[in-house]
Amino acid sequence: MDLERSPLARPFPDIPQIDGVTLRIARARYKAWDRCDLTYVELCPGTAVAGVFTRSACASSEVDLGREQARLGRARALIVNAGNSNAFTGYRGREAVEQIMAQVASALDCDPSEVFVSSTGVIGVPLPKDKAQAGIEAALIAAPCGWEDAASAIGTTDTFTKGASASAMLAENRVELAGFIKGSGMIAPDMATMLGYVFTDAAVDPAFLQEMLSKANEATFSCITVDGDTSTSDTVLLFATGKAGNPALSSWDDDGADAFYAALLGICRELAHLVVRDGEGAQKFIEIAVTGAADAASARHVGLAIANSPLVKTAIAGGDANWGRVVMAVGKAGEPADRDRLSIGFGGTWAAKDGQPLADYDEAPVAKHLEGQDIRIDVDLGVGDGRATVWTCDLTHGYISINADYRS
Amino acid sequence: MDLERSPLARPFPDIPQIDGVTLRIARARYKAWDRCDLTYVELCPGTAVAGVFTRSACASSEVDLGREQARLGRARALIVNAGNSNAFTGYRGREAVEQIMAQVASALDCDPSEVFVSSTGVIGVPLPKDKAQAGIEAALIAAPCGWEDAASAIGTTDTFTKGASASAMLAENRVELAGFIKGSGMIAPDMATMLGYVFTDAAVDPAFLQEMLSKANEATFSCITVDGDTSTSDTVLLFATGKAGNPALSSWDDDGADAFYAALLGICRELAHLVVRDGEGAQKFIEIAVTGAADAASARHVGLAIANSPLVKTAIAGGDANWGRVVMAVGKAGEPADRDRLSIGFGGTWAAKDGQPLADYDEAPVAKHLEGQDIRIDVDLGVGDGRATVWTCDLTHGYISINADYRS
Repeated sequence: MDLERSPLARPFPDIPQIDGVTLRIARARYKAWDRCDLTYVELCPGTAVAGVFTRSACASSEVDLGREQARLGRARALIVNAGNSNAFTGYRGREAVEQIMAQVASALDCDPSEVFVSSTGVIGVPLPKDKAQAGIEAALIAAPCGWEDAASAIGTTDTFTKGASASAMLAENRVELAGFIKGSGMIAPDMATMLGYVFTDAAVDPAFLQEMLSKANEATFSCITVDGDTSTSDTVLLFATGKAGNPALSSWDDDGADAFYAALLGICRELAHLVVRDGEGAQKFIEIAVTGAADAASARHVGLAIANSPLVKTAIAGGDANWGRVVMAVGKAGEPADRDRLSIGFGGTWAAKDGQPLADYDEAPVAKHLEGQDIRIDVDLGVGDGRATVWTCDLTHGYISINADYRS
Repeated sequence: MDLERSPLARPFPDIPQIDGVTLRIARARYKAWDRCDLTYVELCPGTAVAGVFTRSACASSEVDLGREQARLGRARALIVNAGNSNAFTGYRGREAVEQIMAQVASALDCDPSEVFVSSTGVIGVPLPKDKAQAGIEAALIAAPCGWEDAASAIGTTDTFTKGASASAMLAENRVELAGFIKGSGMIAPDMATMLGYVFTDAAVDPAFLQEMLSKANEATFSCITVDGDTSTSDTVLLFATGKAGNPALSSWDDDGADAFYAALLGICRELAHLVVRDGEGAQKFIEIAVTGAADAASARHVGLAIANSPLVKTAIAGGDANWGRVVMAVGKAGEPADRDRLSIGFGGTWAAKDGQPLADYDEAPVAKHLEGQDIRIDVDLGVGDGRATVWTCDLTHGYISINADYRS
């Protein structure tokens, strides 16, 4: 099925090259299509890596292996297969991943544990080893390509190609960050997946790289939701080639660590937002800011309960400032909250304060705000200092059409 | 807006009278409508009561008070207001409930704590005290009515009236149970609510009555979901008048306790199913049986993760035996599961076993099963002996239409 480009799409930005990173793409033809569906990223020796992965109890072999590999902290290559997720395929799926790791490691003369593999697409069908092998052979000798081509090749049902960049000034060195991502919720007939990759020329020790990625993830990728459904393959990897020549960052006390983290946080947030902007059927981008919670984790939990509520999401789709549904979602989150201290606003206008509708509540500016594409919901729980911001999209007929009306 | 009667509706059954229970209805006109919207149930002196309530952190005053009253174990009356939920109304909402309790207690010469109040409908508007007072005055002198009239008067956006009955033979006595319920998910522009009431002429000690209701609730009302959104007012009350004259049941060892519990479980299950059958936009009734879980609670959690997954619900709406989405939902539940032992079936046919699609999987009988209205999904986790069954409905364009397209 052909999906229309999301009305919330962003143009692909200009992204500079990252020293130590070479991008190549090829046709493995995992499905009956004529497009590049295998992305090969070669990383210079000494590249550090960190990763965050789905918490699904039914994760794919790629995730199981990637989690182990990320602990070792070193990477020389990344292979992304699009069109077949290789999930729920038992030992045959694992064999296919191990074959890819061995093939690339042999070509680069590195350890197989330094070759990271991700797959996205149809589930229940073992990744065909012959197609993977031929695709990698082609990729190894392909001419290098740019960011947009690589970002496009990892896409499946995405309606636009997603990338972002950032830079930071460390003590003596300017470092660059670049990244791309795919994902748009979960697409019929098979689950889609969020796969994101960020590359930097900064030198960062692997353990600290992991610490920063885990922290940034908590405030970005872990704060978005399209439909509350979690893929078995979600993966974000961060590679640091060290080519910028800065003294390797190894703790928050190092000069430039804060600047680097700020840039990392920014690029992760932008990539996360792009996934929401391609949410299935999305017509509106929704930011939900929760304050006054018991702590930050509690605030995020409440925010995600609101963001995942079908009633809140349909209300926004209908342009309805239905704060009652927000109350309901706060209540069901199971976090500390006080009904009589709860305040709720839309687009900067409070609709209810301290557990009661405002007597002088003027719905006009709120109605106007809800006509727009970028919606803001403020929720103050009134019980503490915890705060978090989460992002989601609205729930529309488009979501049902994509997921129920079409068959494979 | 006028909603079409659910295609999954059941006709209202013949329900015998329960000795000690008198039903009356009246017009309080909580909204601008000409219908009975106040239900008054008078219970004979000595009636025992038990209750289960929403876990929402933003529960209504009715729920806060009802929870305290149920602990005392005695009831003389029930008032149900339809059209105004009195939720999120601060101290003024509480005053309205206390006024109702005082007014009925005065008429019956009982303690206010023996008067139970429920409200459902618009939120954020304090229940108008004058309308409640006049409505109760009318109800107190109204002629007794039958079950269907009472069940109809508590409805809000329900598309059909819901009731059930059961009986049990204790050692020497036959006892009757009758109940009615309202709820259909959450309806624009305000949350709907599940309110259920069961009445019996059996004599049961309040503490044991509560124990049995809590247990039955775990396997029935707590095992249904329409959209995963939880009302601030959900309430189920069980009243036992004792008029059957049996020696009061007070423990599981008593003769007839098991028979009574079986009847109670049956009527609670039937009432719970009726709510799902009126789920917003529902076209199919879905039963999800989870086996092989670590324990029963884990099985229920996995079952509800599947039942609440928009991707599973849309797949069933589209007649798509998409076991990959079931895998995804199992994975995200966060319960013990083993990807390589997981088995999934539809309508009695296994599609995947031990973590892999079945080689000889025949989709024909499954496709035929999915064309029907009553859908069965089997999931075996392969890690233990825990089991649970949950119920939900599909997610259709009707849900979006009801919740996004219409405004109040």
